[in-house]
Amino acid sequence: MSLVLDPHAQDLLFREARTISAFTDEPVTDEQVQAIYDLVKFGPTAFNQNPLRVILVRSAEARARLVPHMMEGNQAKTATAPLVAILAADNEFHEELPQLLPHFPQAKDAFFAERPVRENSASLNASLQAAYFIVGVRAAGLAAGPMSGFDYAAVQKEFLDADHTPLMIVNIGRPSADAEFPRLPRLAYDDVVTTV
Amino acid sequence: MSLVLDPHAQDLLFREARTISAFTDEPVTDEQVQAIYDLVKFGPTAFNQNPLRVILVRSAEARARLVPHMMEGNQAKTATAPLVAILAADNEFHEELPQLLPHFPQAKDAFFAERPVRENSASLNASLQAAYFIVGVRAAGLAAGPMSGFDYAAVQKEFLDADHTPLMIVNIGRPSADAEFPRLPRLAYDDVVTTV
Repeated sequence: MSLVLDPHAQDLLFREARTISAFTDEPVTDEQVQAIYDLVKFGPTAFNQNPLRVILVRSAEARARLVPHMMEGNQAKTATAPLVAILAADNEFHEELPQLLPHFPQAKDAFFAERPVRENSASLNASLQAAYFIVGVRAAGLAAGPMSGFDYAAVQKEFLDADHTPLMIVNIGRPSADAEFPRLPRLAYDDVVTTV
Repeated sequence: MSLVLDPHAQDLLFREARTISAFTDEPVTDEQVQAIYDLVKFGPTAFNQNPLRVILVRSAEARARLVPHMMEGNQAKTATAPLVAILAADNEFHEELPQLLPHFPQAKDAFFAERPVRENSASLNASLQAAYFIVGVRAAGLAAGPMSGFDYAAVQKEFLDADHTPLMIVNIGRPSADAEFPRLPRLAYDDVVTTV
């Protein structure tokens, strides 16, 4: 009753959405990914820095380069998901700030001249955008399977460069019939929220 | 057309939602915060670790302790927002893993025995949950004003402890009539997404 978001949308994005490991063969199109991005790009980031970068692993050759770097338990699903996306943080995001923050272009040098500061800020804010992206995948009626079980250094070397840090890899598609498993518990409100 | 989420929900959560600095006096109730949490707690985290912790700054005394640690440009809005929430990562989240991941309780020791590993994982996953929380604030028909401009060490010392790292501080409320400002640009799809 305290929420104004339609209950069906609540279910679609959170209550009934599940992390999925087994997918149907139905492809995920570039049009779907673009619609997802064009929705969730509006999610806020500090200084409007937009540090998230996305690599869509579409070719068989690229998939073959990725799968061996996944933890063993993640290899089969990464090999078979309709689409695999590598989400990364751009540690040189400040180069775009004059364009993204036109009323305060000096933020680039005033706040982000130092690389360690940029890395921290890019990591936090690209993680926010990764969450918006997962919500967006669900808004497209698809399921996401985000994974942190992979060789980060190897994936960075194979698909990115020294300026881009991998955050997570997300399998995307429609859940197959056998993809169901029991919902894990969550921490209760009183275990998470305190008032001062 | 590629999205199945209702267009009104798209607007509520992303397209028309804005980061807000000026609020009406209408209070934000505990019931609203609980409804937000009870929705967004279902957003996925690695190993279902649920590392986000939330401090609601409600008392005048606590607000007076917080405001001086905000960057000057954030002080007035933090002093006047109906509700201020400190979002933090619990670096000892692994203590709850046997409860949260009952089919794999050994994850606690197999993956998270080392504190630096926990800090990295808590930071990434609490950031995901912070984004879900911002989406949830909007799902409640409220506006969020997330801020990273504050003295992290001072806020940690004043409101948290060595095991809890502040991520961001979020002002929450209804936008006042003068809260409107032009939408900042976002990076285009082709600047963010590459296909291999």
